[in-house]
Amino acid sequence: MIRFNRDFTFEGSEAQKTIMHEAMAVIANERSSGTIGYYNLPEASKTLVDAAKSLESSNTLLASGDVTDIAVIGIGGSSLGIKAVNSLLDSKGIKKRALHYFENSDPIDITRTMAKLKKANTLFIVISKSGGTIETTSIFKTLIAHFDLRLEGADRERVIVITDKGSGLSQFADAYGLGQYNIPDNVGGRFSVLSAVGIVPLTLAGFDTAALLEGAGAFLERFFEGKEEHLLEKACFLYEQERQQSINVLFSYANDLENFTKWYVQLWGESLGKIDATGSHVGMTPIGLIGSVDQHSFLQLLIEGPRDKTVTFISIDDFETPLTIPDVSLKHIEKTDFINGQTFNTLINAQCDATRESLVQSGVPVDGIVIEKIDEAHIGMMIIYYELLTSLVGAMLLVNTYDQPGVELGKVILYKKFEK
Amino acid sequence: MIRFNRDFTFEGSEAQKTIMHEAMAVIANERSSGTIGYYNLPEASKTLVDAAKSLESSNTLLASGDVTDIAVIGIGGSSLGIKAVNSLLDSKGIKKRALHYFENSDPIDITRTMAKLKKANTLFIVISKSGGTIETTSIFKTLIAHFDLRLEGADRERVIVITDKGSGLSQFADAYGLGQYNIPDNVGGRFSVLSAVGIVPLTLAGFDTAALLEGAGAFLERFFEGKEEHLLEKACFLYEQERQQSINVLFSYANDLENFTKWYVQLWGESLGKIDATGSHVGMTPIGLIGSVDQHSFLQLLIEGPRDKTVTFISIDDFETPLTIPDVSLKHIEKTDFINGQTFNTLINAQCDATRESLVQSGVPVDGIVIEKIDEAHIGMMIIYYELLTSLVGAMLLVNTYDQPGVELGKVILYKKFEK
Repeated sequence: MIRFNRDFTFEGSEAQKTIMHEAMAVIANERSSGTIGYYNLPEASKTLVDAAKSLESSNTLLASGDVTDIAVIGIGGSSLGIKAVNSLLDSKGIKKRALHYFENSDPIDITRTMAKLKKANTLFIVISKSGGTIETTSIFKTLIAHFDLRLEGADRERVIVITDKGSGLSQFADAYGLGQYNIPDNVGGRFSVLSAVGIVPLTLAGFDTAALLEGAGAFLERFFEGKEEHLLEKACFLYEQERQQSINVLFSYANDLENFTKWYVQLWGESLGKIDATGSHVGMTPIGLIGSVDQHSFLQLLIEGPRDKTVTFISIDDFETPLTIPDVSLKHIEKTDFINGQTFNTLINAQCDATRESLVQSGVPVDGIVIEKIDEAHIGMMIIYYELLTSLVGAMLLVNTYDQPGVELGKVILYKKFEK
Repeated sequence: MIRFNRDFTFEGSEAQKTIMHEAMAVIANERSSGTIGYYNLPEASKTLVDAAKSLESSNTLLASGDVTDIAVIGIGGSSLGIKAVNSLLDSKGIKKRALHYFENSDPIDITRTMAKLKKANTLFIVISKSGGTIETTSIFKTLIAHFDLRLEGADRERVIVITDKGSGLSQFADAYGLGQYNIPDNVGGRFSVLSAVGIVPLTLAGFDTAALLEGAGAFLERFFEGKEEHLLEKACFLYEQERQQSINVLFSYANDLENFTKWYVQLWGESLGKIDATGSHVGMTPIGLIGSVDQHSFLQLLIEGPRDKTVTFISIDDFETPLTIPDVSLKHIEKTDFINGQTFNTLINAQCDATRESLVQSGVPVDGIVIEKIDEAHIGMMIIYYELLTSLVGAMLLVNTYDQPGVELGKVILYKKFEK
């Protein structure tokens, strides 16, 4: 289970009820009309889990047992969600294949990641909705040359493509006879982690993606049945604060939540940062922090800086990693001995609570998400929670939550630089 | 060399000249009076480089050649600067010992990092200005128990302490006869990377810390000689935009700059996020982004979202890592072939330029820092550049740049939780 709680005041006035009612109608319509496809993924992607699992016997390379590593070639929505789930489950020791990410056009990073891989042990998964992402295609071509990938004969089983049906990349896969999984047209990149984008690589890595989908689906159903009203209320609160508290901080108390916060930053920033119907520049700025580390970095600004922020704390009830601060007392540094005998699990959660209380006392609007423990089902719930929250706030702001017209200009300028 | 350029308008009016003149007077006085010590570190820390180097022969364990790993136990200002420098130099292959960081009270992270180390090959460096940081002391005690560190006999050479003279941790080191280096009283944690905090571990890791100090010192001198006026003008611009453009984004085009952006986030946020002399909540919000990855995440918000941000681009002229996009053309994905034959070094920098131009066209105030190549001297310049910028803006905002009173409340609440 996940517990949600809050320290901000939400009145629930008639005006607010209207806002919530209308936003709810918008997203219920997105769902029922099929305009927006992510609502359907917890159900629709179930067959993908089976399809990916069947590759273990049907793909000769995977069946041989030689494949210990998976190279994921993708950027933005084609990598952030996979990394978020992978990082959270990494410490559980259930993974059977290591995931490696090629996402940046940074030559040092590409060279370093290539050096970790051997062709004989690696499956390559190329992910791009459009098929025209310059980082992805450039890196893929570099890997073809570096690992001598033939795209014919036995090597064809070494490459899997995930893309929109009919995209250039899809046609490429068809032309060379490569394995291919498609992303539904009505699912945007940043909402795609529960589509083939996430399900195929995460299943092949050994994670229980059926549970990931079940957790997501269960929360989604509860929400549409009106049993998660707090989510709608939070959306309304954030929407109403958009001008005053335009910065939304996600303060996550666990190192392995860092990639989840990066996934959230893309989802929130790219969905809501828009020119609205009246021509106004709207949107909130997402920031991801990690506790307790960032208590020693960003907290001062939260407490004493401008009152332009809301903060959401994420904590984990049970880290399932017993580690106790030993009953050691050292001369002259006995001041912190009060924590001796406690677990680090207790310490980090007490730090989360204390930091939260200090923000509440300083007048900062705060809420909290407490995850019972880290497993696929809980991660699924967190993913759908944030996707729904984003859709609701987008509906309230009257923006198109699902496009990203602002990033096109830079692409045009880049193309022009090389056309000369 | 580092090149600085800008796409925002700075008039240089009489009023602005006065602001700059007064801020300059404030920091010149901080320096000459010795109130603030970091200005003096490029000179004063030179002896530390020699002291750390001499440990290679005087410390029996280091002299034995068995020490391949260094565990750094510290958080915030006691780890961020070390990590920033270490990450940037990591790919150069000059490091002789690996640095490992114990900074978070996260039990999974601590357990994972402990598993990477063997006592016989590890030197432990405990860093805390005050000596009373709960994460640092709790982790240190855990390492003592886990690795059976005796704090007597030969094991005493295995632990080095870096702290303020006279602190609890300093007295502890004296009591057990451990090696100790001190941080000057007038150097705050987030300004301490060029003190013993950074110099001792980075020297022992094998980096050229003399060059780090020289690069920093050379830039510092040029600035105080009036030869880096652009820095003063940028400070004035940011100060004047503090209300309208309260978010300052550092968009760094290289993966290995990520820890540098985290160091910057602490420096900027914790120094400037303050209640000023009139009781107002002031300060700017720092955000670190990595290009090209975050073009696929945060860029949409920068282009179309609220006009409350300034953006500084950092790029690297020469990655010193030749990697060319091969002349491979794949059926149906020929659209990005225009980049074939170019290096990734060229691509990533062209992406930086294109993104920057798209922001300029959208009316976002932008400037750029171009680093010729990554080495210790250039990193030293970057460190002192940001420290000086922070001090200047703090002086203009009339805040105390060097304290952090806001973080105390959370500590008090935490202590109370366990007193019960």
